[in-house]
Amino acid sequence: VPSSDRRFETAIPVHLQTARSRHKRVSESYRPPHPSFSARFDPKILQVAMAYFGIQYKEWTSAVDTALAHLSASFDGPDGPGHWDRASYVDEMEFVNIVVVAYWDVPEQFERWLNATENRRWWEDEARLSDGIGYFREIYLPRSEDSETIFSHTDKEGLSVLARAMSGEVQEHGYWGSARDRIPLSQVDALEARGSAEVIVDTNSSGRRIRIRPHQNLCIIRSGQDWGETDEAERRMYFEDVEPLLTAGMRFLRDEGRAIGCYSNRFVRMTDRTGQPIAKTYSVSLWRDLSDLERWAESHPTHLAIFVAAVRYFSELGLTAGLRLYHEVSVVRAEDQSFEYVNCHESTGMLAAVP
Amino acid sequence: VPSSDRRFETAIPVHLQTARSRHKRVSESYRPPHPSFSARFDPKILQVAMAYFGIQYKEWTSAVDTALAHLSASFDGPDGPGHWDRASYVDEMEFVNIVVVAYWDVPEQFERWLNATENRRWWEDEARLSDGIGYFREIYLPRSEDSETIFSHTDKEGLSVLARAMSGEVQEHGYWGSARDRIPLSQVDALEARGSAEVIVDTNSSGRRIRIRPHQNLCIIRSGQDWGETDEAERRMYFEDVEPLLTAGMRFLRDEGRAIGCYSNRFVRMTDRTGQPIAKTYSVSLWRDLSDLERWAESHPTHLAIFVAAVRYFSELGLTAGLRLYHEVSVVRAEDQSFEYVNCHESTGMLAAVP
Repeated sequence: VPSSDRRFETAIPVHLQTARSRHKRVSESYRPPHPSFSARFDPKILQVAMAYFGIQYKEWTSAVDTALAHLSASFDGPDGPGHWDRASYVDEMEFVNIVVVAYWDVPEQFERWLNATENRRWWEDEARLSDGIGYFREIYLPRSEDSETIFSHTDKEGLSVLARAMSGEVQEHGYWGSARDRIPLSQVDALEARGSAEVIVDTNSSGRRIRIRPHQNLCIIRSGQDWGETDEAERRMYFEDVEPLLTAGMRFLRDEGRAIGCYSNRFVRMTDRTGQPIAKTYSVSLWRDLSDLERWAESHPTHLAIFVAAVRYFSELGLTAGLRLYHEVSVVRAEDQSFEYVNCHESTGMLAAVP
Repeated sequence: VPSSDRRFETAIPVHLQTARSRHKRVSESYRPPHPSFSARFDPKILQVAMAYFGIQYKEWTSAVDTALAHLSASFDGPDGPGHWDRASYVDEMEFVNIVVVAYWDVPEQFERWLNATENRRWWEDEARLSDGIGYFREIYLPRSEDSETIFSHTDKEGLSVLARAMSGEVQEHGYWGSARDRIPLSQVDALEARGSAEVIVDTNSSGRRIRIRPHQNLCIIRSGQDWGETDEAERRMYFEDVEPLLTAGMRFLRDEGRAIGCYSNRFVRMTDRTGQPIAKTYSVSLWRDLSDLERWAESHPTHLAIFVAAVRYFSELGLTAGLRLYHEVSVVRAEDQSFEYVNCHESTGMLAAVP
């Protein structure tokens, strides 16, 4: 399709457009190099809850299954999430981490779920300290103006499963800084971090139940890959030309990210709800702020290697590519973040970010 | 030096700072990854002239030397440039092009030089059509608010030879979009192209004397490399790891640049005034506007390959690196541009940009 014949939508939904005090990085005549799409949520959704539940262990015990069963049952109960998925990975300390991500599009439902007697009791139970495994809960409640999503395709994943629809082709993608330009609040705000995260140790836990006092405008990105629709030749190409560079970049962030503002990076394999691997991975990383993420993405050799490999991959395959990519980015106020770690090792999530 | 101890200047000189309607791409807390410097001109300089004089031939004839002698003598005459240098290269049509760039910091002096009877007569002489060689004149008169320079070192080159001094470390570099942030006019203007360039053929020239009617906000960049201070080991590293990628990127722009907004690219070897090669190269390229240059630089595999190689090179060598890099960028109003081609082949300079 000649680019002059393509029609574009602005990524920021109409109901969140406002008089700008800050300009977009590209002009109205900018045309992206390939089609991409953003999730469109019901304008009545003002805020969502994204909760990352972790189970951490070196040796499997029945406590792992008990915890998963508890989570799963609670999700099926009243006020459960609108969508959830499961993944796992082995971290830098050689612990297995099972990560369950749940999404709510009504924060009050999430709060009711969180505070339901049964759920609260289970989480606060002293038994969690002696189960022999670790647990974490990382919770974000971004407002609609704090988030953006971008997809190479129109199938939903993650938070966007809760969306009403996918957009048409959006204009704001394919250039560095486009994630910022898709976040509605960027129309009027620089989205800068303020303050520092601090540790709060529960004094009744022998130091094993730790909360984090968050700082303003932490940035979280979940960035996913789905090779379920690739044929054998394309899958080989992905795993030979792209995936090894992705793995290297994710390892760099995991092991050396702190120096450049990346608090935590988990590159996980998605599984079905029974734990069987499926043809999807994602990374979830936490950044001091969006500008730190921008700098790594646009200038670090590890990410540029991934980027160049992906550009080559898609320009070789064109519209026949079966690989699907997406991400969701949120810049979250301090009051909309919550981190709690029970019996986890010291480089787990935000624990690695604080002295 | 710990970055917290480094002091930075803003690249936009104080006398050109103004109330912003457009924000910089980075916050005040941004710290560049390595030191860079901008030329500081006398605040009394409001506009400069940058003139690219070309001599084009496939077979050397004495007309080449005659033309060079004319130029050189005229530069030594009244109202000559404050600085000039010479380079040459073989273009895509296998013509040799000698390129002499001259800089004036008083536009009125340049106009007097240009219109001096002797110079005007030589240029307009019908003999130029029958000398058997080609000539071109590409002239830009950017105002101080239209330009920026950046250097990896504090030795002057190009336009900056006319500067009063070099700055201290500037904040605005090391991220995509920093060239824009260094151009004073970007404080209040998007620097977008308007209109299209058009050909104007001199009807008395049998189609061999061609002028270009310019469009608003063409972007010119001269970007240079100087390996004169490298030792043998570093020079080998430069020519093995960086220079081949630079050559490939420059060839891409030369041969395929039109599709992405690059009208012309010349990657030239500098010479002394007698034509002997020296240890310097530069590219000079013309772009529809700054945003087209930004997109290529920040996302095209050919430039990212150069960028990543340069990052690796400098991180390996650190402060011991002898390689020197610089560029000068201007976004030029239509009335401040002038292009004239005499007897040149059709892909010369702006001739390649017009139907």
